[in-house]
Amino acid sequence: MPELKSKYERFRQKANIVIHGTSTKAGRLFDLILLGLILLSVFLVMMETVTEFNLKYHSYLVFLEWIITGLFTIEYIFRIISINKPWKYMTSFYGIIDLLAILPMYLSIFFMGTSILAVVRSLRLLRLFKILNHPQFTKQSLQLNQAIKASKGKIIVFIYFVLISTIIIGSIMYLVEGEESGFTSIPASIYWTIVTLTTVGYGDISPETPLGQFIASFVMILGYGIIAVPTGIVTAEMAKTMHDKVSIPKNPCIGCATENYPENANYCPNCGHTFNTK
Amino acid sequence: MPELKSKYERFRQKANIVIHGTSTKAGRLFDLILLGLILLSVFLVMMETVTEFNLKYHSYLVFLEWIITGLFTIEYIFRIISINKPWKYMTSFYGIIDLLAILPMYLSIFFMGTSILAVVRSLRLLRLFKILNHPQFTKQSLQLNQAIKASKGKIIVFIYFVLISTIIIGSIMYLVEGEESGFTSIPASIYWTIVTLTTVGYGDISPETPLGQFIASFVMILGYGIIAVPTGIVTAEMAKTMHDKVSIPKNPCIGCATENYPENANYCPNCGHTFNTK
Amino acid sequence: MPELKSKYERFRQKANIVIHGTSTKAGRLFDLILLGLILLSVFLVMMETVTEFNLKYHSYLVFLEWIITGLFTIEYIFRIISINKPWKYMTSFYGIIDLLAILPMYLSIFFMGTSILAVVRSLRLLRLFKILNHPQFTKQSLQLNQAIKASKGKIIVFIYFVLISTIIIGSIMYLVEGEESGFTSIPASIYWTIVTLTTVGYGDISPETPLGQFIASFVMILGYGIIAVPTGIVTAEMAKTMHDKVSIPKNPCIGCATENYPENANYCPNCGHTFNTK
Amino acid sequence: MPELKSKYERFRQKANIVIHGTSTKAGRLFDLILLGLILLSVFLVMMETVTEFNLKYHSYLVFLEWIITGLFTIEYIFRIISINKPWKYMTSFYGIIDLLAILPMYLSIFFMGTSILAVVRSLRLLRLFKILNHPQFTKQSLQLNQAIKASKGKIIVFIYFVLISTIIIGSIMYLVEGEESGFTSIPASIYWTIVTLTTVGYGDISPETPLGQFIASFVMILGYGIIAVPTGIVTAEMAKTMHDKVSIPKNPCIGCATENYPENANYCPNCGHTFNTK
Repeated sequence: MPELKSKYERFRQKANIVIHGTSTKAGRLFDLILLGLILLSVFLVMMETVTEFNLKYHSYLVFLEWIITGLFTIEYIFRIISINKPWKYMTSFYGIIDLLAILPMYLSIFFMGTSILAVVRSLRLLRLFKILNHPQFTKQSLQLNQAIKASKGKIIVFIYFVLISTIIIGSIMYLVEGEESGFTSIPASIYWTIVTLTTVGYGDISPETPLGQFIASFVMILGYGIIAVPTGIVTAEMAKTMHDKVSIPKNPCIGCATENYPENANYCPNCGHTFNTK
Repeated sequence: MPELKSKYERFRQKANIVIHGTSTKAGRLFDLILLGLILLSVFLVMMETVTEFNLKYHSYLVFLEWIITGLFTIEYIFRIISINKPWKYMTSFYGIIDLLAILPMYLSIFFMGTSILAVVRSLRLLRLFKILNHPQFTKQSLQLNQAIKASKGKIIVFIYFVLISTIIIGSIMYLVEGEESGFTSIPASIYWTIVTLTTVGYGDISPETPLGQFIASFVMILGYGIIAVPTGIVTAEMAKTMHDKVSIPKNPCIGCATENYPENANYCPNCGHTFNTK
Repeated sequence: MPELKSKYERFRQKANIVIHGTSTKAGRLFDLILLGLILLSVFLVMMETVTEFNLKYHSYLVFLEWIITGLFTIEYIFRIISINKPWKYMTSFYGIIDLLAILPMYLSIFFMGTSILAVVRSLRLLRLFKILNHPQFTKQSLQLNQAIKASKGKIIVFIYFVLISTIIIGSIMYLVEGEESGFTSIPASIYWTIVTLTTVGYGDISPETPLGQFIASFVMILGYGIIAVPTGIVTAEMAKTMHDKVSIPKNPCIGCATENYPENANYCPNCGHTFNTK
Repeated sequence: MPELKSKYERFRQKANIVIHGTSTKAGRLFDLILLGLILLSVFLVMMETVTEFNLKYHSYLVFLEWIITGLFTIEYIFRIISINKPWKYMTSFYGIIDLLAILPMYLSIFFMGTSILAVVRSLRLLRLFKILNHPQFTKQSLQLNQAIKASKGKIIVFIYFVLISTIIIGSIMYLVEGEESGFTSIPASIYWTIVTLTTVGYGDISPETPLGQFIASFVMILGYGIIAVPTGIVTAEMAKTMHDKVSIPKNPCIGCATENYPENANYCPNCGHTFNTK
């Protein structure tokens, strides 16, 4: 019995290394296959919503989706088994997304029409951001990240300013244009202001009175000008960042996912996991 | 009698500290409640313009608006009482906005339909810009402000150039396109030019003759190119600002709102108010 | 007789100083009045094209336009008289514009409908760019000018690249979309490409086939990305310019408009005009 | 016989210098004529797609196109003859384009309607990029190129991020908006997201539900903000590049087009061609 337990323990460790690690061959292969499966599953869900395609290949789509759901289920179970604190994973952001990605298919057995909720599967694409930790991109994404983080304070002040301006301009346009030309309510007016200020300009709502067009012109020139502000902020920070040294962060502990441990630690100070950095 | 007067004087001082100060607990609480009330009042006015919502909840909306108008009225009276030079406040920009925010509701008793003017209440949102003086944002907004101020001269020259180009291009397009394709007058043509030059592009007016489309293409590429100019200006100033030291400005005197006093002054040189900086 | 001639000569010199100079009070006043008249004349032409306005106030508009045409005619004659080489002025860019600004009204006496050509009067607005030589703006416009000039080479390379891409993408989209969805010819397709690449996006032509939308998505992301290039160019030059010293250029000779004379010259080497810089 | 061979050899070398070189007068003339012919051929193809123009001048267009096709054919043959490794040229990118540019006209003799494929001729415009190697532009395009290359890593990370966001936002909008308002499938939804995020904003699809408009507002502000990122990247690199020295690259070997040879090589290490750099 203890032998069986230790065998199970060894299997768990192996699974852990394969799933969370990227240093072994099996670990890299696992990441690659997962990447492919996520892309395929998102492609399938996308194609299911294209009516003509769905009519032709419905049975193939359903078949493939069941296979992917099966594989994702196995992955989900392994993730729970291999980690020391399964509950922490299950209640984490990625844990919930992983569950939501497989749930709709099983529910579709009992309830009609829930398979459309498989759309949430596209959230699994967020996992793809982990690729950016790949050595080839690490430096680039770190520099980007650092510049964006440093700009955060100024960007918030800027967006705060933009939002308030948006409400004020929206209210004025509602009074000026009236309900005939699409400015049916202040929220609709604010929507128009954002569409205009960001230079998107759908044209679904557009001012028709001369005064409205005059104010709109002012809003456009304002929007055209203040785009300089976030750009200026990020650029200045980016230029600064490129002179700085970038320190590459540590891998999170595969036992408990903490990154809070000393540089040369042999054991995780949080969960006691042994680091095999050698 | 003098006792009553001094009592009133003490009350006034307290009110002054609560309303204008941010260093006491009561002062911060007042700011927070005011912030919430302004947001709520703007939300109510917004929702009143959404027809379906208004039909369902009209009585609730009116009830809440009267409460908020009441509270704003009390605030307005306290602001007048607590300051040494009430007339200066009443004729100031914020003073007029504060009055305009409460007036429409009272007028709506006597006249029909004026309650829609409560829309001006959204101007009170400008008060929210004061939050940017909060220590957490001070440095950020100062740097932003400084960079924008330093860019002002160049930006004015740039906008002057853009406006004149706009009139000239608008006149040319009016001649080229004629009245069939929406270019009904030179002002409409100028409106189209601004819509195009700023890359908003509603599409409510768009050129139809080959020559018009050719000129439009030129205008678009021009607009696409010259957006580099304001961005360049602000970015260059931003980069410069970030190297400079930022001096945090003094709080305005709560007696007369001046900021024009020496660093270590104990009394306001303008109105004689005692500074309790300790 | 010689007295009369010298009197005329003195009058000419005075006129020259008033019209071309900005250092005397009369010269500044002349510039200000000219500025006002140009703006007024452009406003009148603009308003004449607004049908409702024109129907109501037609006679007033015509009356005012004749007055302005008269004043511009007097100005034109004085410009010719006061300068030493009138032919040079008359064949210069501004000289032709000044003539075109008054001609249409006179022609409208003999021919119907030529008064609409008064629209060219808006070209006189170009004179307003001279204001940017005003001391208050000189430094700002010089820095802007210098940065834009320094960027010119790179901007040309960039626009060259954009134009060729535009033709290639336009040709591909014509093949892909066919004539049903607005891509009726390659020039129309190129027009669409420019509208999309510059992020203007009117929506008068938009792709309808899946492949067309896919290519369009690619074009949009390309356009969204390459806007970084001109911005990067101008910003980098702007940052460089701000470190450099800006040398304020000399006033052009009022005799012959040349700027090509030595720093301390007492006489213009081109036309012999005496400089009264003291 | 050997004399004939050597005569042919000398002719081949001359052709090589004229076609690939730019240092001789004949070489520059050849480039200029080629440039003109390419522009003319593209113009002809463009005009053939404009229905009215084609109806009027069809025979002229066809005549001119046959002449150009003839000239291009001669050029193609000379290119094959003059180079040492003709197969390498014929299978190269430019070689295939050069063939594709002449093939459709010949095919149109046997098959109807293939002449429209002459559109691929516009790909020959890519040859025009070679002009950027002209000494006048070399420094400018090198600096641009260097800055863009240095930004590549960060730009890829950024586009990767944008694409994934696009899929996620597109899926959400599909669920929120439903099929009534143009969001007929997830791919269509993603197309809308790209149109909005890049601030193009055609307006062919636009959200109609309040929640959809709210999310759209968020997407617009996001798009408005993240345009700062590529701009920041390129600008920072551009500013850095302008301080660096730019090393002008070597001309490719005219025997085999390699650029991989030592600075002072007298013979091409790849094909043994003699360099006449003196």
